[in-house]
Formats: sequence, C-alpha cells, structure tokens
Amino acid sequence: MKRTAFFISDSTGITAEVMGESLLSHFPGIEFERQVLSYIDTETKAHNAVEVINRAAIADKAKPIVFETLIHPSLREIVTTANSFSVDIINTFLKPLEAELGAHSTAAVGRPRIATQDANYTRRIDAIHFALDNDDGGRTHKYPQADIILIGVSRSGKTPTSLYLALQFGIFPANYPITEEDLEDFSLPKPLRAHRDKLFGLTISPVRLAAIRNERMANSRYASEQQCIREVQQVEKLFEHYDIPFINTTEVSIEEISTRILSTTGITRHFR
Amino acid sequence: MKRTAFFISDSTGITAEVMGESLLSHFPGIEFERQVLSYIDTETKAHNAVEVINRAAIADKAKPIVFETLIHPSLREIVTTANSFSVDIINTFLKPLEAELGAHSTAAVGRPRIATQDANYTRRIDAIHFALDNDDGGRTHKYPQADIILIGVSRSGKTPTSLYLALQFGIFPANYPITEEDLEDFSLPKPLRAHRDKLFGLTISPVRLAAIRNERMANSRYASEQQCIREVQQVEKLFEHYDIPFINTTEVSIEEISTRILSTTGITRHFR
Repeated sequence: MKRTAFFISDSTGITAEVMGESLLSHFPGIEFERQVLSYIDTETKAHNAVEVINRAAIADKAKPIVFETLIHPSLREIVTTANSFSVDIINTFLKPLEAELGAHSTAAVGRPRIATQDANYTRRIDAIHFALDNDDGGRTHKYPQADIILIGVSRSGKTPTSLYLALQFGIFPANYPITEEDLEDFSLPKPLRAHRDKLFGLTISPVRLAAIRNERMANSRYASEQQCIREVQQVEKLFEHYDIPFINTTEVSIEEISTRILSTTGITRHFR
Repeated sequence: MKRTAFFISDSTGITAEVMGESLLSHFPGIEFERQVLSYIDTETKAHNAVEVINRAAIADKAKPIVFETLIHPSLREIVTTANSFSVDIINTFLKPLEAELGAHSTAAVGRPRIATQDANYTRRIDAIHFALDNDDGGRTHKYPQADIILIGVSRSGKTPTSLYLALQFGIFPANYPITEEDLEDFSLPKPLRAHRDKLFGLTISPVRLAAIRNERMANSRYASEQQCIREVQQVEKLFEHYDIPFINTTEVSIEEISTRILSTTGITRHFR
C-alpha cells in the first residue's frame, strides 16, 4: 500500500522533514511517496498546498500524512482543511512548553534561528574552507589549528566526514591518507606524529572498500579485494598499535560517523 | 533566567536536536544552555544521563527541558525519572500514526534510515566529489552532468551552498566565479553560455561582502566597499539581463539558500 507524505513549512522545511522522516522510519512496511512544500508563507500558497494534498488523497484513495511546522495560525487553518492526517509538529509541544517556561512563544514566521547568528555564519564558512584546504593531506602546517585529523586508507570516508563536521558543527577538520607505504613501514606518517591526540581513524569493510574503489578505477590492483583486505587489516593494526580511536564506516551514515566522533572525543561543537 | 536543554537519543541525536532547537527558537527571551547526549543505548548510559540532568536541575534551580527520541521503553523509563520537563518527540505522534496507517511501528533502536540505503550513500559520495571537482570554475567539461551551476562574485557563498546541496540532497552542483573582467564586458563567461538553464545566481549585500573579503585580505582593493558595491551592482544587472534566477544570501543560512534554490528551480533531490 502506498501513502503520500507531505512536509509543509513556511520556512526551509528541514524540521518538518527530519521529524517526519524519523516518524516514518518506524513504518518500514509502508511505501511512502514524499513531497516537500517549503516556503508556504502566503494564503495563496497555502490554498495551492491544499489542492496538491487533495489530489494525492484521491490518487492514493487514502489520506496523505502531513507533517507541518506552519507558525502562522491563518496558514495552518487553511492547510488543515485538506483531506489529510495532519501532524502538527511544533504546536503540539508549544503550549506545554510555554507553561513550563512561564513565557509566551513568539510566532515569527519562517526565519530559522541560525541565520541571524553572525558569528556562527562566519565560523561555519571558515570551517568549510579549513576542511577544503586541509583535505587529503594537501597541507599539514595548519594542523595546530585543526580540531581533529581524520586518517584512513583511500576512500574510507574521510572527505565527506570532514565536510559534514565543518558544515554542521563548525569544527575545523583535517584529513590525511594512510598509504601503502605507511602501512608497510607500520609507522605513522611524519606530519601526524606531533598531533597524536587529534587523530581519529576511519576504517571500512574490505568488500565495501573494493566496491567503492571499483567505481573509480575498475579492475585495478588498487580496487582488488586482496589489496583492500590487506590495507584494512594493516590500518586497523596501526590504529590499535598507536592507540588511535577509530570507527568502522561500513553501512554507517555520514551523520552517524560524525556524531559518534563527537561523542567519543568530546570535541565541542562551535554551534548547532 | 538560564535553563538547560538536553537532546537525548539512542542514535545520532539529530532529530532531537533539530526538533528541540525549532521549539526553543520560539522562546528568544530565555537563555538556554544546550547539551547533546547521543548514543544513549544502554541502561548504564541512561542512568548516567539522569545524573547529568539532575545536576543541571540543581545548578539552574529549575527543571531542565529534555527533548528525547529514545525508542526503547526501558531506556525512556529510566530517563524520565530525572527531575526534568520531558518532551517525548517520537512517541507523542507514534500511536495516532499507527491508528491512521493501520500498522504497528517497529521499535528499532538507533539506526537512522539513511544508513541502510546503499544507492543513496553512493550517490551522496559521488555528489560530494562532483561538488569538489567542479568548485570555483576549476573544471567546466562536466557541466552537462551538473544539476545546477551556481554563479556569483568571489565570496558570495557559492562553495558552502554547493557542498550543502551535494551532502544533503545528492545534487551534482558546479560553481563558477564571475570576475571583474566578466562584469566589465557585461557578458556571461564562455563556459556558461551553453548551460543557461542550469545557472543560478548568488548575490549579497556589498557591506557584508566587504566584511567577508576583509577577513581574507584586509584593506585590499578587492575587499574595499567601493569595489564590492560596483561588483554587486554589476552582477545583479547581469543576472537580470540574462534572466538568471538569483537569491540574496545576506543574513540567510546555507540551509535556506539551498532549500530556496530547490523550491525555485524545481530540481529534484536524489534523496532526503
């Protein structure tokens, strides 16, 4: 059975989506078709949204599920006229929170909190540029400024993790590849030795690594399963020998790798 | 008055945080100290969390606000013994959703949905590498594969936006700088001309641009307010002349720029 799920917001729609997806993930047996309607910030747009929802209801022969974070009561009133099952994400909790905090909530439409925080914005941009400049061992002289240095064999997930840490948490990440030569010497590359406390290892299942490498360089020695098995075994031994914390990234999302790194190391986020 | 807010999860904590921050943003008059407790997936960790919450309650002389997405009932039971005001983000909506969907929810602890989606994972990594390879006009021969080509003057936000689009939505973004010479000629740079339908402009207030540029190259002509005013005026005229949609990134978060681009262009996300 197919159901349609809408994520409706007068702003980016990110809260509606994150929250809605989290709830939908509890129903793996149902196929959901998803649609994001963001920036629904006028009555005309709200009426259009109702039409779209009602069309889906007819097509599905079942009520669409609507996850909404609309702030303005007049917009919410319009959207709730649709033939849908509505989950009012924010308002459900707002009244009890007002009581507990002894404060009235402000109903500001559509401006996410982060936008107004100038220092955070700058930190974030700086973090992204730091991640780019210090990707893949490109530079090493900025390591004293790095919050963390991710290490691992080629294609173990260092770059995406670095970028996520920078974008989402304003952390200054560097990453450095562990090469075959390093593994044969069984030694930490020189530029890393003075920064042992900042090192964090990424590892991955050899089968998965071979699959990823094959997409880049099919049928190469680099992508062969044998080579991947050897590199992964050696790099994990290296991590253990030098007492470097590490995480296996196989079947783990970038979000999970990143948050596990924060939770293991205790590195402070610069914003959220 | 200061209050402490906890975001507690048996997984990444992202849902608890996004949702909790969204709620807290309605109370701008209260100062919240935030603490994320992620991967609370054992009873021991849950008991430790209770201790941390209770300490905050004593220090604040007020109940901490706890936003939690704990799935396992035994863990939730422990955490709710704390002296706190608890917002049970998931369970509040789960029962009504079960009724509407006519299905029981599965209580899988701690594995976010995205992690298991192999095709999405690959698409995401490919998108990130595409964004990196096609940053700042570095290459142009891959533009036929690009979903979007961001253009704008130096430091108008192209790189962070590209990375966000790739990371969060699996979109293949390129970006290309509009230089002083392009502006003086009042013409689209050659590599862009065949891809008019993929172009999206970023602009920014000259004052803000000067501030950003000054951090990189203080007191340069490049960072002077005069120069920034000229470039911004000219680039906006260029966008208008060539009928290129554009967005002003001043005081707008990367999330908002990115979701507005999606909502304006109708580009389909490759995942969520």
